Amino acid sequence: MQDTQRTLAPTAAYTPTDRTVPTRSAQRASYDKEVVHAILDEGRVCHLGFVRDGAPVVLPTLYGRVGERLYVHGSTGSRPLRMAGQAGPGLPVCLTVTLVDGLVLARSAFHHSVNYRSVVVHGVARQVTDPEEKRAALDALVDHVVPGRAADARPANAKELAATAVLRLDLAEVSAKIRTGGANDEPEDLSLPHWAGVLPLRRGYDTPLPNHDLAPGIELPGYLAEL
Amino acid sequence: MQDTQRTLAPTAAYTPTDRTVPTRSAQRASYDKEVVHAILDEGRVCHLGFVRDGAPVVLPTLYGRVGERLYVHGSTGSRPLRMAGQAGPGLPVCLTVTLVDGLVLARSAFHHSVNYRSVVVHGVARQVTDPEEKRAALDALVDHVVPGRAADARPANAKELAATAVLRLDLAEVSAKIRTGGANDEPEDLSLPHWAGVLPLRRGYDTPLPNHDLAPGIELPGYLAEL
Repeated sequence: MQDTQRTLAPTAAYTPTDRTVPTRSAQRASYDKEVVHAILDEGRVCHLGFVRDGAPVVLPTLYGRVGERLYVHGSTGSRPLRMAGQAGPGLPVCLTVTLVDGLVLARSAFHHSVNYRSVVVHGVARQVTDPEEKRAALDALVDHVVPGRAADARPANAKELAATAVLRLDLAEVSAKIRTGGANDEPEDLSLPHWAGVLPLRRGYDTPLPNHDLAPGIELPGYLAEL
Repeated sequence: MQDTQRTLAPTAAYTPTDRTVPTRSAQRASYDKEVVHAILDEGRVCHLGFVRDGAPVVLPTLYGRVGERLYVHGSTGSRPLRMAGQAGPGLPVCLTVTLVDGLVLARSAFHHSVNYRSVVVHGVARQVTDPEEKRAALDALVDHVVPGRAADARPANAKELAATAVLRLDLAEVSAKIRTGGANDEPEDLSLPHWAGVLPLRRGYDTPLPNHDLAPGIELPGYLAEL
């Protein structure tokens, strides 16, 4: 259905490259910036890939987004952070965020699938050296855990800032991939006696657990109660 | 507390290597096979990393486990499957599975964290050529989506088997990493007026959605209703 109210210009998009055009299921790919941002903002943890001694390494880590920049952080002693080297050429990475929305059960084993939304970012991660950018990146990382939280926590002090390395990865070579809908069985399988459909996965929160050493009288803040 | 009832031999463990001993938070690492298997069996999607043209690539994909072997699959035309080459030396990969259990809110921005359980597997993925192993691997992949499902779906036919490549990755160079518990703030921060604790993430299923073309009279099978 056409939305005749939409008078804005078309959404900006990332330029596809050899690395971001899939060899299969091309209809699932999207380069729309709004689509990419929404997936990145809904994800909790990314999987950061880099090459060490010629072999791939994939580690889960938190991330934050500020406009067209992603940030990850870690101890200055951690391997990828050391490898990205403050003064060096940067670290080639692939950063992937995946949301699993549902399990797709087909009559045929072959057509079983998963409904998902993923973003894959290729690029070179570089250490952030500008103090203002580093502070803003750390705020974005905390606010990515819980929106609004950075303003309700003690900011990093000089010692903590010195112990923390932040890597920046620009959103330039980026694609999203999305699968939605039910099972796509072969026509000759539609009469088979197997149930087919989607098992949606639920995301949500359980009741917050106060820390054992929480001072008396500190209430659950509104931005947490809303979740 | 010591469990005096435990008379079994110690659980088998993977041998740590340079790649599986973390540089930080070593107390979070585990090489216990039961711990690793439990995380792999609870995860839905893995992130598979490999190197292409010298750069890392990280893609989300389904997987299945049979004992000490993991399997991933894909079209015979997909990039990692082609790269693993049936007759070639195999594809060096890093396969990572991450379960996010909770968001850890500390009084200080610095000590914010995530409770998680992850498994990282390093190794060389090789195409499965034995037809029996390939069938068992595909059953494991379907049963990983929903336990019990492989027996309630039409098995792959010859054409589908020929179009599907399966990669095997042995569980040998493996580690788990687990963070649990509340926020670990600095003693001098305990009196700050910020709420601290854990926001547990809930995992579960919503009501199954029957396919639009499901034949009348096909009830939801018991193994789905139980979920």
